[in-house]
Amino acid sequence: MAGEFELIQRIFSGHDKAPGVSLGIGDDCALIRPSAAGELALTTDTMVEGRHFFKGTPPYYLGWRALAVNLSDLAAMGACPRYFLLSLTLPSGDQAWLEEFARGLFDLSSQAGIALVGGNMSKGELAITITAIGEVIPGQALLRSGAQPGDDLYVTGGLGCSGLHVQSGLGEIKLSPELEARACHDSFILPCRTEFAARLAAECGCRCAIDLSDGLVGDLGHIVEHSKVVASVWVDKLPLSPVLAEALSSGQVTEEQSLEHALYGGCDYELLFCLTPDRRAQLQDLAAGLKVPVSRIGRIESPRSRAAGTAGKEGSAIRLLQDDRELAIKPGFEHF
Amino acid sequence: MAGEFELIQRIFSGHDKAPGVSLGIGDDCALIRPSAAGELALTTDTMVEGRHFFKGTPPYYLGWRALAVNLSDLAAMGACPRYFLLSLTLPSGDQAWLEEFARGLFDLSSQAGIALVGGNMSKGELAITITAIGEVIPGQALLRSGAQPGDDLYVTGGLGCSGLHVQSGLGEIKLSPELEARACHDSFILPCRTEFAARLAAECGCRCAIDLSDGLVGDLGHIVEHSKVVASVWVDKLPLSPVLAEALSSGQVTEEQSLEHALYGGCDYELLFCLTPDRRAQLQDLAAGLKVPVSRIGRIESPRSRAAGTAGKEGSAIRLLQDDRELAIKPGFEHF
Repeated sequence: MAGEFELIQRIFSGHDKAPGVSLGIGDDCALIRPSAAGELALTTDTMVEGRHFFKGTPPYYLGWRALAVNLSDLAAMGACPRYFLLSLTLPSGDQAWLEEFARGLFDLSSQAGIALVGGNMSKGELAITITAIGEVIPGQALLRSGAQPGDDLYVTGGLGCSGLHVQSGLGEIKLSPELEARACHDSFILPCRTEFAARLAAECGCRCAIDLSDGLVGDLGHIVEHSKVVASVWVDKLPLSPVLAEALSSGQVTEEQSLEHALYGGCDYELLFCLTPDRRAQLQDLAAGLKVPVSRIGRIESPRSRAAGTAGKEGSAIRLLQDDRELAIKPGFEHF
Repeated sequence: MAGEFELIQRIFSGHDKAPGVSLGIGDDCALIRPSAAGELALTTDTMVEGRHFFKGTPPYYLGWRALAVNLSDLAAMGACPRYFLLSLTLPSGDQAWLEEFARGLFDLSSQAGIALVGGNMSKGELAITITAIGEVIPGQALLRSGAQPGDDLYVTGGLGCSGLHVQSGLGEIKLSPELEARACHDSFILPCRTEFAARLAAECGCRCAIDLSDGLVGDLGHIVEHSKVVASVWVDKLPLSPVLAEALSSGQVTEEQSLEHALYGGCDYELLFCLTPDRRAQLQDLAAGLKVPVSRIGRIESPRSRAAGTAGKEGSAIRLLQDDRELAIKPGFEHF
């Protein structure tokens, strides 16, 4: 097995050249000089084998998604991706595995314009931790607390693919091999929403977003809690991911299963955001220009629009409306 | 088991108030506004159970050391600690364990003046990843490449304690219970060298340092390689850690074992640095003022002082001198 230094040098070096990087990989720390006017957004996320992905998931997929989930947090703040650090724990220094992992990682990092400036490798159960750093224009960050009564509620992309992939991987439903492979692909090769989010903040005046990691209801719960508002969601307007839509139309999942994935399925890493109705046209232009699918799925309301006593508590401040009915809320997904 | 959010909130929140933190824990990212004139130093390090520490190590020790090894990297750049992020993977949400872990972590973070601004928890094999961010005065960072022929070579503290602890934990030697407990304590409750290092840069004009993670010979190898110099180490001047010194004097380890730990034992996290001889008095004042033990252990020389062909390669550019003999070099410790 090659030494740690050579492995890191051979496979992970050379991706640390970027504006603001005064010293890349190779010393005790990287050194960066962020732009003087900027505010930095910091986030870290871990993926553990058997917990966040199934054993045997292609390493290319893992490299892509380990970075993608962190980019998703940057997008949720409207931050431009700048630098990241990688901490990789793996059972062996398998070179072919590492090269595929790195290929996935760097295919996405090149697309997103983020530089790998540091990291380390250890022996152990397969786990990947990335810390990502982005820049925000001071005062323009998208916050969970930024929703205002009267705002439209939007989501990017389609929902429920990761939930479908997990359910299929656990053997709880049986998908066709073709659909199963597509569900896996689409759950890992996530689109990057950072440019859209940064321009949403700068051009459309958006001030509120979150990324979908705990499921639509769970993450909308964070928005209503932090913003002290209530939200109505029009269930029939929820965009299903293409794979989930096909599974539904071909009878491989039921209506009920599909709705469950769209409302509560975790790890879709799409952007949920709020915007005043007078920005609808600007939003449409931005979304069309960047080819980002955007769906208007509900409305933010004042807590006074609910009977006293029911608002403020997570879940109870969300109304799921379908036709003339209001659906009951299940508790959101949590990691413990 | 309590939900992830409540656990994090209860145990890890409230340590994110610090100058420059515009948004702490609780959104998708933390937001910081570093001082405009500063350069940021970024580092990340992971500790995995069974690899970097034995199963059953007290959680207080783990919390302290997980941060300490990252502070050590900041010290090695002369950076002032500012912010850190924590990624914790653990088999269960054991509250007593988490509280002790947090107590060790925050005892050190308070002392070092570094704020926890973000993190996450996952289920899995016990592993702790911290990413730390410090500030450096631009152009004053301590670099591996900063050694100059003629410089004195110094090390802080004492060497070989972690090597002794590991050898004892593996059952390769038998220490008295009292010494075994002290070796474990001193391997985890590491001193913080960040203030010393920052002032070494600012007040003594030091430009070269590294922290000892791969052992003295291994890490000195990085300095000579990056600085394109050679180094002589006076083996009899190497400061032994108090525990190793006592193990030696009481006959619990041999001279040979002691030397092995001091030269090649990893994870001492002391500072190895170079300084021109005209700064000796200033260094002495600084070290005395901060009560940091400092030992002069060798000298940096020009590669021309070695026969052509032997310099430049790691190891061969280091001379270990004892009395009139030159000791042969073993390959340094590496993680793979």
